[in-house]
Amino acid sequence: MPDTEAISRQIGRALARIREQKPLLHHITNFVVMNDTANVTLHVGALPVMAHARQEVEEMVALAGALVLNPGTLTPEWVEAMIAAGRRANELGLPVVLDPVGAGATTLRTESNQRILREVRVAIVRGNSGEIGALSGAGGVVKGVESVEDLDDPLAVAQAMAKEHQATVAITGARDIVADGERALGVDNGHVWLKTITGTGCMATTMIAAFAAVESDPLIAAAGGLACFGLAAEQAAEQAHGPATFKLALFDCLYNLTPEQLAAGARLVTLA
Amino acid sequence: MPDTEAISRQIGRALARIREQKPLLHHITNFVVMNDTANVTLHVGALPVMAHARQEVEEMVALAGALVLNPGTLTPEWVEAMIAAGRRANELGLPVVLDPVGAGATTLRTESNQRILREVRVAIVRGNSGEIGALSGAGGVVKGVESVEDLDDPLAVAQAMAKEHQATVAITGARDIVADGERALGVDNGHVWLKTITGTGCMATTMIAAFAAVESDPLIAAAGGLACFGLAAEQAAEQAHGPATFKLALFDCLYNLTPEQLAAGARLVTLA
Amino acid sequence: MPDTEAISRQIGRALARIREQKPLLHHITNFVVMNDTANVTLHVGALPVMAHARQEVEEMVALAGALVLNPGTLTPEWVEAMIAAGRRANELGLPVVLDPVGAGATTLRTESNQRILREVRVAIVRGNSGEIGALSGAGGVVKGVESVEDLDDPLAVAQAMAKEHQATVAITGARDIVADGERALGVDNGHVWLKTITGTGCMATTMIAAFAAVESDPLIAAAGGLACFGLAAEQAAEQAHGPATFKLALFDCLYNLTPEQLAAGARLVTLA
Repeated sequence: MPDTEAISRQIGRALARIREQKPLLHHITNFVVMNDTANVTLHVGALPVMAHARQEVEEMVALAGALVLNPGTLTPEWVEAMIAAGRRANELGLPVVLDPVGAGATTLRTESNQRILREVRVAIVRGNSGEIGALSGAGGVVKGVESVEDLDDPLAVAQAMAKEHQATVAITGARDIVADGERALGVDNGHVWLKTITGTGCMATTMIAAFAAVESDPLIAAAGGLACFGLAAEQAAEQAHGPATFKLALFDCLYNLTPEQLAAGARLVTLA
Repeated sequence: MPDTEAISRQIGRALARIREQKPLLHHITNFVVMNDTANVTLHVGALPVMAHARQEVEEMVALAGALVLNPGTLTPEWVEAMIAAGRRANELGLPVVLDPVGAGATTLRTESNQRILREVRVAIVRGNSGEIGALSGAGGVVKGVESVEDLDDPLAVAQAMAKEHQATVAITGARDIVADGERALGVDNGHVWLKTITGTGCMATTMIAAFAAVESDPLIAAAGGLACFGLAAEQAAEQAHGPATFKLALFDCLYNLTPEQLAAGARLVTLA
Repeated sequence: MPDTEAISRQIGRALARIREQKPLLHHITNFVVMNDTANVTLHVGALPVMAHARQEVEEMVALAGALVLNPGTLTPEWVEAMIAAGRRANELGLPVVLDPVGAGATTLRTESNQRILREVRVAIVRGNSGEIGALSGAGGVVKGVESVEDLDDPLAVAQAMAKEHQATVAITGARDIVADGERALGVDNGHVWLKTITGTGCMATTMIAAFAAVESDPLIAAAGGLACFGLAAEQAAEQAHGPATFKLALFDCLYNLTPEQLAAGARLVTLA
């Protein structure tokens, strides 16, 4: 059973390492969030690059500390580039983080994400319950890119999917669930304002990738990224008059959040 | 002749329905505004999805309450996807809203929009006077994506185009004109700050689509979307110190605007 | 040797001309910054259009006052469109401004930018020291799209590259260097906050293009765009609580900056 106090200290130290090492996060991601996730990458202390050309992704990922695959506005050509980059990341031992945006909504999305999971060794998958439910075959209803029905037992779904793909699985929601097939953590940081702006799931995935670039235990990296993002959201909510002022404050708070505040403010729960 | 007081109450109720039903707005839109129009969709109370792959658009649109076609950064491949999605929306009886960004500026833009209007039954077209002028053959000068010359008689142009395409036509400007070939309304909500940021035309189109998803009369849906967006702009202008603080306040005001405020604040004029 | 006081007055007058003439800036640029650079274009007083389809770029650029080529999320198809638009701009005598994002990071990026420089007469190239170092063969280390090592003698590198390509070369950093092979200026406006948000290099390039559209001396256009952007950043820094509030204030300040403030606030240094 993970010791949440020790993990809180560990993720605080990880945030300090991100800012020290400034790892490059190579994103192959969707058009909607590219600007936001590049900014989140900078604000947490890492460096972003967005590059999707089949001709350069294998060379680009070799410079990176982690690879984000987010097929939110996918076409088959982009999926090919994702798989090529993912395989190269695997050869190099770099963590690959997958955000299966809208899996379950269309056949193309479900099958493309399943193919990525088959052909690339993914370290961490982060999705909402609809997306993870659809990918794991546990059900889950997706309306576009939103989950509209909660899973009965998200922990069991996460654990089963983690075992099947030998990956850490994060299901984000009111309580985020992070599971690696054996251990499991709940992350209670976050705020309902996050649902009022687009791309917060994608931003959470970027946060996880930043932590994965400096922290070798994927369970802790996933919990760290989510706790850090959720804590910044809690601070931002105090200054919000609506979704736009919330987003503004979220980015500032993320940038100003210290490793000490993160270690003290992470709200982790041991689930297994 | 439309009764503007009754319509104001009707569009207030439509805003309440958007927030209750949370319709999915499927956008095939341009890269510049994807993030902004996704946020506007959320703030008015609907759900956004951006999906353009030929392989999934017909499946995605079947989940939607309305389809937005915005060829602002078009290529021929994207136009094919727009037409496929539009035809499927027609089969399903879903409203299609077209934003002919930059029609008149290049042959590709003019012809692609004309082709969409021929091959898809479009419920509502929204453009500036240059774009609508170019598409209707009434003249109209476009510099990139901006209209640089007013039409002599925008109402006559809108009515003629509405009759030709059996669509509702909205020409936005200082006074927005909405016409369906018989009836016509002016919408006097709005603010000059809207011209200082990019994508406000595209955002207005998204607003119209949100209303069209819950209101079956396209004339009222178009007037509702424009009145709602314009009223939020008026409120936002009071807090603006420049275009960025205006945009920030615009998004917050849109989120906080109530159906009652909309019914009371819509400034509609009967034109025919 | 350039007279910096005369040039300051000249760039103040150029800003006034931008707002009077509202030149169209045709961008073929990357997905990450499209929204931001469109807004920066509007805020400085020009008009943006983003258009990349091979079928329309030659027609679109003919409407423009300057062309921005920014292969930050390039594919080979986009590079073809850039070259076609660049050649047409050359025929029309329009200034072409190149932002070689990430040159040096991958072979595709380095070679594509070199090809553009060979096949298009570029008026002004703006990059960080890593990018310009990589393109000029002077060394320079790029991590994704960030320069991570300073050039020993950036002025010499800029002058050599300017001579080789008969272009004005701008290397942005703590002190921006602008050189045309004979004359050289330093621009000391700017603020460290600019490094905390994505796309500020791309925005600086857009600013240069706005000035190049109304000022025929590329050295002065480049210095003008950088001084204007840097001065707005200095003003914005006073209101910043983090990167997001900095960006918010940057856009407002850019919009509110007067030609007189620019002429008085430009901090130029004669280097050659």
